[in-house]
Amino acid sequence: MKAEIIAVGTELLLGDILNTNAQFLSRELAALGITVHYQSVVGDNPERLEGVVRQARSRSDLLIFSGGLGPTEDDLTKQTVARAYGDTLRFDEEELEHIRAFFAKSGRTMPENNRRQAMVPTRGRKIPNANGTAPGMIFEDGQQAGKYAVLLPGPPKELQPMFLDSVRPWLAAMSDSVLHSMTLRVAGLGESHLEDKVAHLLRGENPTAALYAKTAEVIVRITAKAQTKEKAQEMCRSYAQKFYDILGDCIYTDHADSLEEVVVSTLAERGMTLATAESCTGGLVSQRITAIPGASEVFSYGACTYANEIKERVLGVKHETLEACGAVSPETAAEMAQGVRKAAGADIGVGITGIAGPGGGTKEKPVGLVYISACSADAVYVKRIVVPNRTREVVRISAAQHALEMVRRLALSLEQPGCSRFAPGKAAHMETAE
Amino acid sequence: MKAEIIAVGTELLLGDILNTNAQFLSRELAALGITVHYQSVVGDNPERLEGVVRQARSRSDLLIFSGGLGPTEDDLTKQTVARAYGDTLRFDEEELEHIRAFFAKSGRTMPENNRRQAMVPTRGRKIPNANGTAPGMIFEDGQQAGKYAVLLPGPPKELQPMFLDSVRPWLAAMSDSVLHSMTLRVAGLGESHLEDKVAHLLRGENPTAALYAKTAEVIVRITAKAQTKEKAQEMCRSYAQKFYDILGDCIYTDHADSLEEVVVSTLAERGMTLATAESCTGGLVSQRITAIPGASEVFSYGACTYANEIKERVLGVKHETLEACGAVSPETAAEMAQGVRKAAGADIGVGITGIAGPGGGTKEKPVGLVYISACSADAVYVKRIVVPNRTREVVRISAAQHALEMVRRLALSLEQPGCSRFAPGKAAHMETAE
Repeated sequence: MKAEIIAVGTELLLGDILNTNAQFLSRELAALGITVHYQSVVGDNPERLEGVVRQARSRSDLLIFSGGLGPTEDDLTKQTVARAYGDTLRFDEEELEHIRAFFAKSGRTMPENNRRQAMVPTRGRKIPNANGTAPGMIFEDGQQAGKYAVLLPGPPKELQPMFLDSVRPWLAAMSDSVLHSMTLRVAGLGESHLEDKVAHLLRGENPTAALYAKTAEVIVRITAKAQTKEKAQEMCRSYAQKFYDILGDCIYTDHADSLEEVVVSTLAERGMTLATAESCTGGLVSQRITAIPGASEVFSYGACTYANEIKERVLGVKHETLEACGAVSPETAAEMAQGVRKAAGADIGVGITGIAGPGGGTKEKPVGLVYISACSADAVYVKRIVVPNRTREVVRISAAQHALEMVRRLALSLEQPGCSRFAPGKAAHMETAE
Repeated sequence: MKAEIIAVGTELLLGDILNTNAQFLSRELAALGITVHYQSVVGDNPERLEGVVRQARSRSDLLIFSGGLGPTEDDLTKQTVARAYGDTLRFDEEELEHIRAFFAKSGRTMPENNRRQAMVPTRGRKIPNANGTAPGMIFEDGQQAGKYAVLLPGPPKELQPMFLDSVRPWLAAMSDSVLHSMTLRVAGLGESHLEDKVAHLLRGENPTAALYAKTAEVIVRITAKAQTKEKAQEMCRSYAQKFYDILGDCIYTDHADSLEEVVVSTLAERGMTLATAESCTGGLVSQRITAIPGASEVFSYGACTYANEIKERVLGVKHETLEACGAVSPETAAEMAQGVRKAAGADIGVGITGIAGPGGGTKEKPVGLVYISACSADAVYVKRIVVPNRTREVVRISAAQHALEMVRRLALSLEQPGCSRFAPGKAAHMETAE
């Protein structure tokens, strides 16, 4: 089945908004084994819209529209598509009630022009909208059986649930094969290094595997095609095992959405707690941890100690350490981690200090240099990273990512590759672990 | 001049990446007074690409392509466009040197297939790429004078500077009118409330003004068209004055990109310092503040005090306050703000406590309830917000935004609408300021 995604809206052509619907729909269709050959955007202009609809209908089996269903837009999209697919629109009393009720729920009266949204296909079918007033609709081609146009409202919070609840099941029922995807997330290995290790696994045809580099992590996406969902899942799982065999515990999840989610659940499972002391990351780690529901179970205190004086007073970093080694040093990072761990009475402490830029760098301590420490009662680890030629934002995100990965490894008693280790309290002397 | 934006890349059709280039280019072209009628995306497929190029050339004066210039993609885009525009490609020795040098700079050797990137138009012209290996190029139509195709590399960090440095000046020189835009950012007023106040200003034709709602702020974009840049700027400025006359100090900037940027510069100008104590926002405020270069001048300490015990120990929140009023209360927010202000020796303190959800709500204290306090030596303000039916993320962003706006107003000695005010130390008794 060849598909095409068409967004209707002048605001897209003006660059006022980003076409996130096209990405969402493309990804969902790919997962259903439906190939998208084109995406296009056209404005609220009758002639140009009609031209786009006519052409798309001639070359694709399935057209998915987003937007153009608002009450002020003169039903442009609905009428144009209805005409092209040999259908007409009828007024739907039940839909009008739904629209009225939707307004009433938020204490408003329905404006008269919202009546237009109650016009639905005569031969095709309407799709209920649980999160807005415009119903979606499906038109079947009057001349060519098995060719469809699906109209969805523009706002993602209406489009996405409507697609997932009503359109996806309908498309899945028509398809004779199912795609299933699995995502492995890898921390602590750069993309090119990772690619070297798993190059032979990236050439498969079914399942396929592809790498996507993000800031300080790499995502491996495995996709399998099979007759049933169960079979496709099983194919993904066994292919994933090949990655586990090579990458081991560098794969930090095959189901969670982020490293902070894994950190929170890992700590919770082990009944452990975390406290953070951040300088250059300014609270990014605590913010990411506390973005996860239930973080309060494992996290009690994050100190964003930007000034040296605060590092001393709040965390107990020694004045001599700051004088002798500087605020950006392994020693300060280690004392920050130990200080906040003690202050919070937590199991694990984190300390981060570095130069995020754009100013403040020197030859010895360049912009992008960050020291990250994670400590428990038994051990203190410090990692030195240099993120070169990057923005302040990337330096901060990278540092936070490394810190979270060190916490995960500490909680799971895994090795800490690339870190120096020393005994608690001995901040001034560093031995290299590997 | 009618333009059309065409992205080439299978990864877009699979939904692996978001088409941010289309938004960037659309916005830039709109600012130049060039109308974009279509955006489209097509894969790395010769026939389909050729069809798209042929059609676009027939209906538009200017085609801007992004992507499809990589070394492994067989020069598909270049050759197809060259053919359609009656041009050929030639090998460019100088370009090859540039590509070799680019690899050498990062200590790598140029792979053989990157030679292809040195193929440039024979009649058209190449555009230097300061941030990558693939040059951009401009083809002029061999049959129809004044019709062009511009090819740009896909990665935004290559495409954006190339467009701004080389393509925009060239297009501006061809245009006979200039668009200029100005962005006003408004905090503390909801979109519909704002719309009521300025409805009559949104109907103008030149300048135009439009509202864009973001989480806890609204953006007003004013755009004017004139013969010269100076004239268009002047038109924007006088139209902006009409908004200032109505909205006054609710407009927090007409030039900065974010509220945190304004807060940091406002504090710096006044030689004031800030400290924050955050519970439900988990460090979001400190993270936003420290994302701004130079934040260390005005910010010394952010305490993310998630646990009650830490609120007492680190901030000096009274045990009786937590017992009697609860952690989520105006009293606790006020004591947090005053406690962190004192701990840091700062001019302004912020305290935030609330229920970000999804769990933890009760009938009296529902999910979305947040108390935000900002205090100076002379006064303590507390604001109560309820963000209903929203995600944890939106509750946190809204709370952080309100906190930053209260800090801005405190630093500028402005009124604090919607806040209760009481004397420092008197946390338990709240009088309403308005």
